[in-house]
Amino acid sequence: MSLLKFHRPINGVLLDISGVLKDGTSVIKGSIEAVNKLREAGLLIKLVTNETQETRRSLAQSLASLGFSVEEKDIIPPCPALIRLLIQEKLRPHLLVHPNVMQEFEGIDMTNPNCVVIGDAAENFTYENLNTAFRILMDLENPRLFSLGRGRYYRQDRDLMLDVGVYTAALEFATGVRAEIVGKPQPEFFKSALEDMGVKPEEAVMIGDDIVSDVGGAQDCGLAGVLVRTGKFRPSDEAHPCVKPDAIVDNLAKAAELILQNK
Amino acid sequence: MSLLKFHRPINGVLLDISGVLKDGTSVIKGSIEAVNKLREAGLLIKLVTNETQETRRSLAQSLASLGFSVEEKDIIPPCPALIRLLIQEKLRPHLLVHPNVMQEFEGIDMTNPNCVVIGDAAENFTYENLNTAFRILMDLENPRLFSLGRGRYYRQDRDLMLDVGVYTAALEFATGVRAEIVGKPQPEFFKSALEDMGVKPEEAVMIGDDIVSDVGGAQDCGLAGVLVRTGKFRPSDEAHPCVKPDAIVDNLAKAAELILQNK
Repeated sequence: MSLLKFHRPINGVLLDISGVLKDGTSVIKGSIEAVNKLREAGLLIKLVTNETQETRRSLAQSLASLGFSVEEKDIIPPCPALIRLLIQEKLRPHLLVHPNVMQEFEGIDMTNPNCVVIGDAAENFTYENLNTAFRILMDLENPRLFSLGRGRYYRQDRDLMLDVGVYTAALEFATGVRAEIVGKPQPEFFKSALEDMGVKPEEAVMIGDDIVSDVGGAQDCGLAGVLVRTGKFRPSDEAHPCVKPDAIVDNLAKAAELILQNK
Repeated sequence: MSLLKFHRPINGVLLDISGVLKDGTSVIKGSIEAVNKLREAGLLIKLVTNETQETRRSLAQSLASLGFSVEEKDIIPPCPALIRLLIQEKLRPHLLVHPNVMQEFEGIDMTNPNCVVIGDAAENFTYENLNTAFRILMDLENPRLFSLGRGRYYRQDRDLMLDVGVYTAALEFATGVRAEIVGKPQPEFFKSALEDMGVKPEEAVMIGDDIVSDVGGAQDCGLAGVLVRTGKFRPSDEAHPCVKPDAIVDNLAKAAELILQNK
């Protein structure tokens, strides 16, 4: 892959976490140094993740314990955005989410649910739990299904793991309801990260291992999209029928080099 | 719904089992007598089912114990057709099916699988089992996914239950592989039932509670399709955007009346 020449100055960098900074509990080689170099060069960084198995606080803690200089405020997961939306629209969710993130929904009225929220529930994606969510949607006059991302799979240590998008597709097929996505690749999600940083889309780059949610989503929003060959990357992603990354590089260290060369 | 006038003589009747003859373990009122009347009038009957939680033998036994005069040879479930296909194409399946039907696959080579077969696995649809099937498909150079039906849900006693089609949609979304369906609404499945009976499509009617798999599938194959308001029927089915049944009746007893009036 030839090197990307950014035609405009890059001021903001959005990074995916899983598959870019770390794989499961292992640091991806060179990524700690890459984050430091980008910061030292004066670039603003946000970690834009669809992670819904952990709270923002525990994500920050686990990244810090791996050696990343990252604070809670640098991390943008979909849960806070969803909770703002639930409150704003007076929605009472039934949750099909990971036990670790239940605490994020404290204070939200969940009696007599009028919508379903699905996150990366992992082992909680039992037949029984999926049936319960399905029946609630079928009983609602105006069913609404909110999904924390549309990812197909991610890599956890050595294995590919099914992600929330797969179970969202299942509930959509079962109920005929189209899910409303909160998280990547939803444009509002990228935009809110950029607004936080005070950076325009054309001054920003998203670096991720998901060709559709990271790269395609960012490009649709006017950012440059860089695909890394780590995490869930598969060689077939380089010939994706719809999404053409602005660059494909071996890892975050190479992506940082590329960005800094263009400064 | 006005009564259907069949323009040609009806010689063969295909019946769905679940939601037409019985609901869970309860006989649907009048259905035993309806089957008997149809037979007495000289009509040929086959039970065309996507049931994959039981073998053909145990299905026949449970229907007989409920009072239906039904033999094993009258029942056409998708498993035997699938097994013929596996043998013919030298396929070694990984099975994601209900434990009750594992025995149907005895003698089939399952070492080093080169395809995945998904049935109505119910409680066996765990996150772990779905991940295993997903990873096998992702590792195959030429992945093939066979699904025993494309049903969205069925009614079991009082509850709607997710059906195999939902998990098939999930695996399709995760892998990008389009499933090959064996069972309703696949045209070959209806055709093979008709051939068994020596009846032409235009002399046959399919009676079911699934607007898409039963009624739509049969109509696509040239049969008349009658929807019953039992089983998983929901009032919204009467205004289905694509499928217009030849008749909609309260139950099998009414459907039988209609057919016999037209004899």
